[in-house]
Amino acid sequence: MTQATFTATGHLVLDSNPIEPRTVRVAIAGCGVVGGDLVRLIRESASDVLTGDGVRLEIVSVLVRRPEIERGLPLSPELITSDVSRFQSASADIVVEAIGGTGVAREIVEDALARGARVVTANKALVARHGAELATLAARAGGRLDFEAAVGGGVPIVRSLRDSLSSSGVVALRGILNGTTNYILSRLAEGTPFDEALALARRLGFAEANPERDLNGSDAADKIAILSWLAFGIDPARLAVRTRGIVGTADRLAADAKAFGGVLRLVAEARAHSGGVTAAVEPTIVSADSELGRARDETNVVQVKTRWNGTVTTSGPGAGGRPTAAALLGDVRSAARPLAVGIAAGAVGSGRAEPETPPARWVVSIRRESGVGSELRAELRHTGVHADRLEIDSESGVIRALLDPAKWDRVDALETRLRRAGFDPVVSRYLV
Amino acid sequence: MTQATFTATGHLVLDSNPIEPRTVRVAIAGCGVVGGDLVRLIRESASDVLTGDGVRLEIVSVLVRRPEIERGLPLSPELITSDVSRFQSASADIVVEAIGGTGVAREIVEDALARGARVVTANKALVARHGAELATLAARAGGRLDFEAAVGGGVPIVRSLRDSLSSSGVVALRGILNGTTNYILSRLAEGTPFDEALALARRLGFAEANPERDLNGSDAADKIAILSWLAFGIDPARLAVRTRGIVGTADRLAADAKAFGGVLRLVAEARAHSGGVTAAVEPTIVSADSELGRARDETNVVQVKTRWNGTVTTSGPGAGGRPTAAALLGDVRSAARPLAVGIAAGAVGSGRAEPETPPARWVVSIRRESGVGSELRAELRHTGVHADRLEIDSESGVIRALLDPAKWDRVDALETRLRRAGFDPVVSRYLV
Repeated sequence: MTQATFTATGHLVLDSNPIEPRTVRVAIAGCGVVGGDLVRLIRESASDVLTGDGVRLEIVSVLVRRPEIERGLPLSPELITSDVSRFQSASADIVVEAIGGTGVAREIVEDALARGARVVTANKALVARHGAELATLAARAGGRLDFEAAVGGGVPIVRSLRDSLSSSGVVALRGILNGTTNYILSRLAEGTPFDEALALARRLGFAEANPERDLNGSDAADKIAILSWLAFGIDPARLAVRTRGIVGTADRLAADAKAFGGVLRLVAEARAHSGGVTAAVEPTIVSADSELGRARDETNVVQVKTRWNGTVTTSGPGAGGRPTAAALLGDVRSAARPLAVGIAAGAVGSGRAEPETPPARWVVSIRRESGVGSELRAELRHTGVHADRLEIDSESGVIRALLDPAKWDRVDALETRLRRAGFDPVVSRYLV
Repeated sequence: MTQATFTATGHLVLDSNPIEPRTVRVAIAGCGVVGGDLVRLIRESASDVLTGDGVRLEIVSVLVRRPEIERGLPLSPELITSDVSRFQSASADIVVEAIGGTGVAREIVEDALARGARVVTANKALVARHGAELATLAARAGGRLDFEAAVGGGVPIVRSLRDSLSSSGVVALRGILNGTTNYILSRLAEGTPFDEALALARRLGFAEANPERDLNGSDAADKIAILSWLAFGIDPARLAVRTRGIVGTADRLAADAKAFGGVLRLVAEARAHSGGVTAAVEPTIVSADSELGRARDETNVVQVKTRWNGTVTTSGPGAGGRPTAAALLGDVRSAARPLAVGIAAGAVGSGRAEPETPPARWVVSIRRESGVGSELRAELRHTGVHADRLEIDSESGVIRALLDPAKWDRVDALETRLRRAGFDPVVSRYLV
């Protein structure tokens, strides 16, 4: 069979390389927080993408509203344009839409799909309202539509649902899908008044200048509609999502939650039952130590309940330019990859294994023999490992030491010495 | 632009359907617990796959060791064979390998990839030891290798890492990757002795007849090596995973954990640092309320720490035939889909939205007015909603009711009535 060989640094070398690096042309519509972070991320990860996928991503056009603004991005100025037709004429292989809304964003996406390009978008409103027809358009023209960044920020729930969990017989979805409101609700639970919490969210970049669609639940409603499409095959535009937000009532809702022993979350939910799907976004009181209650600040979490696969829970950062840009890049790389290859051969490369690690904490225990407490101390001293606590468990006849941070090799040496001295040691890592 | 129309039941109808249903030929090597569940799942989900992907999955051959066994599967007997060359001559489009090990399983996978077929496998030992060369073989022949089911059972971590999170700059992975040991450790924490816990795990189908590779950490070591490949591009066969299991020491390790205020988990970890990747599987003491400590029974959990995207955590069932079969089917569907389409147009179809839902619990609060406690009770009675508790918060001047389970429309009616009566109600769902 084929032999792959590796260089000293672990790079894969093929006797005749089947994957020539290919250049894939990328155009980016919108260069705000997310678009700007995407430009930076594409530059920063260029060598990873080349080694891993055999692909060179070339940015060929960036559409902006005001080209005169200095953005401090690694882009030559002639790539930046405010002219939609000029942007479209760049004939990119992949068009990233990071404008938002259903106006010019929709035009750009439709135009790109119609000519068979691959489209990657973070636009939940567009996908929730027009996703089904855009997917049809993509299928007709041989293009492709990906939208991992539209739901859950950095939580990879779109791909998980579409490619993995949809085969498990999804019964219900429940989650926190709006990082802005969750950040605000986390502050309210600590006693911060609403206005102050909103100001904090704005300062940290989680809330837009106009956070109305976050606070009234519309943003989360778009997202649960998209997830319902992937999970249940329902047209997201036709799903009526019962939606209540926290506008004007946040302080009182938080107080109600506290009075009944819980914390408030804006919970999105969709459920399949005989003949239909119901979906809601509403203020919900949950236990502080439940999965939903433990999702604090801008965290998003999605629980997928299935017939064949129990419940799968995924959580991660739900807001911010960098997580969204990373999700966009993931879709761009998938769309740019040689399509027939599940995992690219070039994916083996830049890593190198080494038996080194930073110091960690450990617990070592030995069975007690006469005088062994002092002997254990002596072995510790000898190996150069220090113990924070040494405890004798008289009931089980075991002596335990919680070690100060030490490297693997030290702990291995200690274990070997103790074993040779006949003490039958066992070792655990300590992460408490 | 293209118009897609929907029937009364929500099915997508295209004016000229671009996606003719295609038949995709699937051969399954191995028909134990996982292979058998896959056959059942393919039958059960046939109409979903047809509607969603436009694909008809046809099982063309099933390789077994002993064809004479009655398996009670929906398969015609002539499809079942113990002859490897006969199995290979079925020329399937997709070959599923569910045998395990690196003997005949490897032969079958190499043969299939060499002739350009798409291979889906649950075999962690094979992918950990030969994944890089198999991926090379797939790339050369235009085939494809997928292995979602090899790591994490039903936790969709392979695809998440490969297609999404690898673009976020992965720094470290940490998780519980072996459901069998985690089930046993959960029982030990409750005071069950090891032998009894192992017997229970066997009875529930989590532990094999020979659970040695689970208990000594080898199974988890294979899995963290595979995840390190996807996250860091390192050849899994060349990653030295420092591995300690719980063979012969489980009871003592559990007691040590308890003595130091934590619970024991078999934790797999991989970390990138300057010039290399280190990886370990070892007994680890964690807080009972940490992500790892909260993963009980056969649950698997993976935390992915990234530069651009914070930490993403995914958990779900990590053992059992059905979750593994569902993960295999997810890969089969991905491999069978029209390759250019990120989401298939046919994916819109079988769902229907309706504004109905099972009864839920709710909290309603109103601002206090004179005599309002009795008035609230009257409104509740009038709407046919019952309240478990009615509380007056004299400090904030609010009266709160925790309602008995009621449907949306009841609660909406109550809210409307209260608003009309001038009480300014707010409503939360109650999941505590």
